[in-house]
Amino acid sequence: MHPTPTDGTRAGLADEFRRVRALTEHLCEPLAIEDYGLQVVPEASPPKWHLAHVSWFYETFLLMPSLDGYRPFDPRFAHLFNSYYEQTGSGFWPRAERGLLSRPRVEEVYDYRRHVDTAMLRLIECCDAERWPRVELRLRIGLNHEQQHQELLLTDIKRNLAHNPLRPAYRADLAAPAPGAPEPLNWVSFDGGLVEIGAGAEGFAYDNERPRHRVFLEPFALADRLVSNAEFLAFVEDGGYHDPAHWLSDGWARVRAEGWEAPLYWERVDGRWQTLTLGGMRPLDPAEPVCHLSYYEADAYASWAGKSLPTEAQWEHAAAGVALAGNFLDSGLLHPRPARGSGIRQLFGDLWEWTASAYLAYPGYRAPGGAIGEYNGKFMCNQMVLRGGSCVSSRDHLRLSYRNFFYPHERWQFKGFRLAEVE
Amino acid sequence: MHPTPTDGTRAGLADEFRRVRALTEHLCEPLAIEDYGLQVVPEASPPKWHLAHVSWFYETFLLMPSLDGYRPFDPRFAHLFNSYYEQTGSGFWPRAERGLLSRPRVEEVYDYRRHVDTAMLRLIECCDAERWPRVELRLRIGLNHEQQHQELLLTDIKRNLAHNPLRPAYRADLAAPAPGAPEPLNWVSFDGGLVEIGAGAEGFAYDNERPRHRVFLEPFALADRLVSNAEFLAFVEDGGYHDPAHWLSDGWARVRAEGWEAPLYWERVDGRWQTLTLGGMRPLDPAEPVCHLSYYEADAYASWAGKSLPTEAQWEHAAAGVALAGNFLDSGLLHPRPARGSGIRQLFGDLWEWTASAYLAYPGYRAPGGAIGEYNGKFMCNQMVLRGGSCVSSRDHLRLSYRNFFYPHERWQFKGFRLAEVE
Amino acid sequence: MHPTPTDGTRAGLADEFRRVRALTEHLCEPLAIEDYGLQVVPEASPPKWHLAHVSWFYETFLLMPSLDGYRPFDPRFAHLFNSYYEQTGSGFWPRAERGLLSRPRVEEVYDYRRHVDTAMLRLIECCDAERWPRVELRLRIGLNHEQQHQELLLTDIKRNLAHNPLRPAYRADLAAPAPGAPEPLNWVSFDGGLVEIGAGAEGFAYDNERPRHRVFLEPFALADRLVSNAEFLAFVEDGGYHDPAHWLSDGWARVRAEGWEAPLYWERVDGRWQTLTLGGMRPLDPAEPVCHLSYYEADAYASWAGKSLPTEAQWEHAAAGVALAGNFLDSGLLHPRPARGSGIRQLFGDLWEWTASAYLAYPGYRAPGGAIGEYNGKFMCNQMVLRGGSCVSSRDHLRLSYRNFFYPHERWQFKGFRLAEVE
Amino acid sequence: MHPTPTDGTRAGLADEFRRVRALTEHLCEPLAIEDYGLQVVPEASPPKWHLAHVSWFYETFLLMPSLDGYRPFDPRFAHLFNSYYEQTGSGFWPRAERGLLSRPRVEEVYDYRRHVDTAMLRLIECCDAERWPRVELRLRIGLNHEQQHQELLLTDIKRNLAHNPLRPAYRADLAAPAPGAPEPLNWVSFDGGLVEIGAGAEGFAYDNERPRHRVFLEPFALADRLVSNAEFLAFVEDGGYHDPAHWLSDGWARVRAEGWEAPLYWERVDGRWQTLTLGGMRPLDPAEPVCHLSYYEADAYASWAGKSLPTEAQWEHAAAGVALAGNFLDSGLLHPRPARGSGIRQLFGDLWEWTASAYLAYPGYRAPGGAIGEYNGKFMCNQMVLRGGSCVSSRDHLRLSYRNFFYPHERWQFKGFRLAEVE
Ligand SMILES: [Fe+3]
Ligand SMILES: [Fe+3]
Ligand SMILES: [Fe+3]
Ligand SMILES: [Fe+3]
Repeated sequence: MHPTPTDGTRAGLADEFRRVRALTEHLCEPLAIEDYGLQVVPEASPPKWHLAHVSWFYETFLLMPSLDGYRPFDPRFAHLFNSYYEQTGSGFWPRAERGLLSRPRVEEVYDYRRHVDTAMLRLIECCDAERWPRVELRLRIGLNHEQQHQELLLTDIKRNLAHNPLRPAYRADLAAPAPGAPEPLNWVSFDGGLVEIGAGAEGFAYDNERPRHRVFLEPFALADRLVSNAEFLAFVEDGGYHDPAHWLSDGWARVRAEGWEAPLYWERVDGRWQTLTLGGMRPLDPAEPVCHLSYYEADAYASWAGKSLPTEAQWEHAAAGVALAGNFLDSGLLHPRPARGSGIRQLFGDLWEWTASAYLAYPGYRAPGGAIGEYNGKFMCNQMVLRGGSCVSSRDHLRLSYRNFFYPHERWQFKGFRLAEVE
Repeated sequence: MHPTPTDGTRAGLADEFRRVRALTEHLCEPLAIEDYGLQVVPEASPPKWHLAHVSWFYETFLLMPSLDGYRPFDPRFAHLFNSYYEQTGSGFWPRAERGLLSRPRVEEVYDYRRHVDTAMLRLIECCDAERWPRVELRLRIGLNHEQQHQELLLTDIKRNLAHNPLRPAYRADLAAPAPGAPEPLNWVSFDGGLVEIGAGAEGFAYDNERPRHRVFLEPFALADRLVSNAEFLAFVEDGGYHDPAHWLSDGWARVRAEGWEAPLYWERVDGRWQTLTLGGMRPLDPAEPVCHLSYYEADAYASWAGKSLPTEAQWEHAAAGVALAGNFLDSGLLHPRPARGSGIRQLFGDLWEWTASAYLAYPGYRAPGGAIGEYNGKFMCNQMVLRGGSCVSSRDHLRLSYRNFFYPHERWQFKGFRLAEVE
Repeated sequence: MHPTPTDGTRAGLADEFRRVRALTEHLCEPLAIEDYGLQVVPEASPPKWHLAHVSWFYETFLLMPSLDGYRPFDPRFAHLFNSYYEQTGSGFWPRAERGLLSRPRVEEVYDYRRHVDTAMLRLIECCDAERWPRVELRLRIGLNHEQQHQELLLTDIKRNLAHNPLRPAYRADLAAPAPGAPEPLNWVSFDGGLVEIGAGAEGFAYDNERPRHRVFLEPFALADRLVSNAEFLAFVEDGGYHDPAHWLSDGWARVRAEGWEAPLYWERVDGRWQTLTLGGMRPLDPAEPVCHLSYYEADAYASWAGKSLPTEAQWEHAAAGVALAGNFLDSGLLHPRPARGSGIRQLFGDLWEWTASAYLAYPGYRAPGGAIGEYNGKFMCNQMVLRGGSCVSSRDHLRLSYRNFFYPHERWQFKGFRLAEVE
Repeated sequence: MHPTPTDGTRAGLADEFRRVRALTEHLCEPLAIEDYGLQVVPEASPPKWHLAHVSWFYETFLLMPSLDGYRPFDPRFAHLFNSYYEQTGSGFWPRAERGLLSRPRVEEVYDYRRHVDTAMLRLIECCDAERWPRVELRLRIGLNHEQQHQELLLTDIKRNLAHNPLRPAYRADLAAPAPGAPEPLNWVSFDGGLVEIGAGAEGFAYDNERPRHRVFLEPFALADRLVSNAEFLAFVEDGGYHDPAHWLSDGWARVRAEGWEAPLYWERVDGRWQTLTLGGMRPLDPAEPVCHLSYYEADAYASWAGKSLPTEAQWEHAAAGVALAGNFLDSGLLHPRPARGSGIRQLFGDLWEWTASAYLAYPGYRAPGGAIGEYNGKFMCNQMVLRGGSCVSSRDHLRLSYRNFFYPHERWQFKGFRLAEVE
């Protein structure tokens, strides 16, 4: 699957479109009809909503403005399946109530997808040359957008099923590796200095990765792998969740208000730690990277360990020479795996890494105009940057300069962290 | 359908059991799989939950204690499908989160029903004579319980679908009568005096209808029919929802907090009032009794009209000589119909009537012991009595002495009211 | 102090007015300036607010309509010191925010009282004969209203100071009797039958006590005294607050949500129960009537004890032949005292008694028109009736037919209960 | 007043201590006793609490550990007047309930201050040489801490009095300048490059200002003065508060949830804008810098104007060559004043300036150990940096490297902003 295909022909893009659309539906195959509408918390949207929303995106930003004579599948869907675009004029159904709609039915949502698919392929084929550059750019955004929702589809399914005391698995057939011990953690040093980060002018990138710009870094070191379950368990067993000395003030308030005792999905059953995966409950593997934790927990661990988290500039500088490879959605594991080998690793794939950087504009950043400009810029407050992709990200969706962002308390994504140190 | 069959044989009861069970499933036939899990407000449970809960009731109060060797379909269901019985030991899944469970799937819930059906019929057939009296009593309670949930099934489906802006109908094939003008309202006088109300010792009745006892009534008069949409509209158009002078203090607070402007399901579309029914949106019929309102609205209207609401003793005394007939679930209309004819009417069926009586124990009332004793007694606070049944109640579920009860702000049941006056 | 003086002359009423006004201020003498503005929960208003509100009542219902040329002290006070009268046109400052006003200062509120006092005495003296009957009636209502607020002043001071971990006493000089054992509890039987309750047409009474009417009572028995701390402690120690079997459903929800373990103001210090009084912390006296509990707790105790609570009709019938005497505000104890002597006692004074009756209109009740009609009628929903007055009620404020009412969860008034039984 | 006195002798410090303590009390002189306990929102603490809390700080961090034989004024005050230090062992009274304590009385809090003053002066005089360096450092922190609370005292008094519809002024005698037109806004360019920011190793600074470190800046320009009321009014009148296109997502949510239509304290009276000051209501002066707005509003304005906000590094670099002078608390105006003159100005004083920088650790930052280490580090999440001090900051409390921080929605401090641009 290649949303940024090398040949760049319309036929190549049409092919890409078909593959991205098919993967979304493939990911839904293990679901029961009953699972499609489920939303147990505001942030974890129902699968049905994701299926429809990514289609609405093409309809709104491509078909309506650029395909002459296009008629929307159902004009009322604009209101139901807009996520947060204030400027499209439709308004949007409240995020927290996406699970309160039994209609359109699942089958109707798949009909909607078919309707959009047909029109999109016609647009790709028939669009005149004048309009094509804008169509092509928006199509690439649309494909990347759908890939982001493929990741959310899986994280949201995990979250929504986890609420059920019957503990249903998304896929009962996933292979579970034998638990083991983590490899030793080593440190890798970097000189820092005046470095460049961000996406250059060429190629596809989101607006928030630009402009490429210079940053000065003091000498620093990074851990060569993610923090493991074994290491995080030592923090838990040292009373880490009960000692405010380690925590940010807002983090401690959250620990108390929500009764956190361990990362999300950890459960102590008969005195032994287990964790919920997309393949069901499993014993906690000490060697695996610790997963599903908030920025607050990552920061508290770092504080307890006398270290810090990397900034996004440190991370990007360190990752600049590393091959963009790892345990992505493409591996089919749907779960992080233990670090193996040597040298700095797990920078890409396995888990998104919390950085110590707030999600803010790069110097000289300007959000694009219009509703599509709401994609990234309007979230530049109160969130922290994560880097590197996860075991449920598509490899070809990622870039070295890719900036993900979440609120510091959020835990339901596949997130972990790596230690850093300024010398 | 006769939950209290006249022959009283086991075969008759088995037959009755089959008919009640079948009706529940019949009511679900128009549903899509997606509708079964829907719950948009805490009080309106998903159809799937009702289907399972009524089965759990038999399992818990009949099969587990009285059928030797019975094995529950899934022991975890006790927690999921208990409604509020604190003393069964299972605890219960939070009421507000009944819609947050995509599993068991609909098909599995029907399997659960089959499992319980088979065991119940064996119990009815094979129960020894010593245990039979208690089994028979609990079976009658179980059948009545399921009938109550048949009504809730319909009111909850209406409520849950109404939240959807696509305005789906539960059944698009329901006949809608032509709107008309209401018949004139007349008053019927009663002498009162020392009268008796409540269920006597014979026959099936809920505990809260007993003991039968004497009540003194001042002379009073009742309206001969329910208040109509036309009459209630006059209150609305007179600014009734904007003048605190008519309202109880708690009612006015509710009007303000929730922005009430009319009864539930009334909508003003292009300057004309419409109302949502189980058959979809319809123009408001002036002749129909006004429906889906809270006690606060009924009381405010009565206050505005210079009248009052009947007490439950007045109502029962007035209804004592009237045939228990009317527009029940059995008519298939699933909606109230205009009063026709003469004399006091609509006492039974069409709509539950709010009374001016708080739901409290009759003198000498004692709740039965054990978990089944939680059925009625523990709700004797903060609720008001409603009488007479509705267009979604089974006729043979009703009795003259039947006491329904809801919180004064609740509107989603089929409720209306009748005016009264003490002379 | 006699708000319903026997001579009935204007001079007598002026005298009465002076005495009621002086008592309010006398009750505030032990307060620090800092205490006057305190409100820790919405229901417990600050002393400053009570001082001003009762004055606003005279200003609004007597001086503005009936004293020619009267100029309000500050026209903005109408908004600040109206409690809940929707029809006066001023609106009202939110109840929960009465403690958020540091101005007017305490001294200014006393100036406001002086201003109203002067005008009121002029009105009483100079009102023409035509207006006098209405003025006289409203004056009596105003005096009774201020007496009610004298009781609230003390209950609210107790509640507000109790929030402070320094545990300040309202009056450190109150005598505390030596703890003792309760006298044995005996039962008194009543034949019931057709009896009359409510206030007759003569003399001052609130609208909600009328009309006097007939009620039929089954034979019943009442305990001859209030339930004691010793008896209630047995319920606590039997795990009463941890067993849902005893509780109304709404009561159990409240127990869980608020973590109730004992009546309000009970505290276990070093393994021994203490209770907060207006004179500070004291060891719990087993002989004293149990105090500061909700309807839910009274009902749960009765259920645990296999008894019930009296209805208001039972109570009034039983109290009809008993002298209206007991431990009122006039005793200066500001706390209930143990039952002493024999025969049915503690019906009046000591503690308001929760009844099993919802606060509803008597047959044929009509609320008076206009804003003053909001005094009682608009609260006839969701509350329960209490009878008999308390140790912080003025004796001459009470009547046999007096109906007090509170929400079933409220505990901060001086409330207890007596057991009943229908035979 | 000089908390960092040049002579550095103990006598100098004792003098400094006396002056800081006296200023706090001087600022309270205009208050009524009733004002001392007022808290209308959780973030605006009562004056009484500030008076006691700053004293508790000396008691906890200086007197208890370092003055032999010191006995606390009242050991229970540790719980009442600790703000948020989790590691002192006392716990702390909930921030939102600081206004719910009428005791200790104001007079007792002043007695507490006297008690601490006496002991502190003894400690300064008698501390042995070995302990002195730590005592001296903590004393400087304590004095700076009290200065911070002097500013909060004024912002909180403003906030708390503003809730009162009587609109009381803190000081009715403040001079109000005549409204005028703002001077033209000009831009000042900076080359950027590799610059240094932060506090060096010498002299007093908070931990969060260190270490001094290098930052690379692209060329940029800053406006030469703060944005004026006239300019911000153009945004308001252009519908700025009603167009989501300008707003951060979290900002727009806040605008909607709280109904913002203009900066805090702006009020439209009879069609003309007024604003509340510590001297009472005044007509809005077009020339004054706009004040009391959130980061969201500053950012929305910048977005509307096609500009941005400065980062803290840009700000500090630009301010490095500018004299630390301006309109501080020392001027006695207690309100910002219009920019006058030429060149870049208003960098110091008038209003804290929102920057585009999140409040995060400088590279290599380490929080000090123990409870006093909770002063700054634990707040490094979810807040934005403000720079430059305000009209209610003491001039000698400020430094070029001083970092203030607040949540982006908070408005009650004296905050404004300046536009920036990256070229
Ligand atoms: Fe999206
Ligand atoms: Fe049920
Ligand atoms: Fe009042
Ligand atoms: Fe502080």
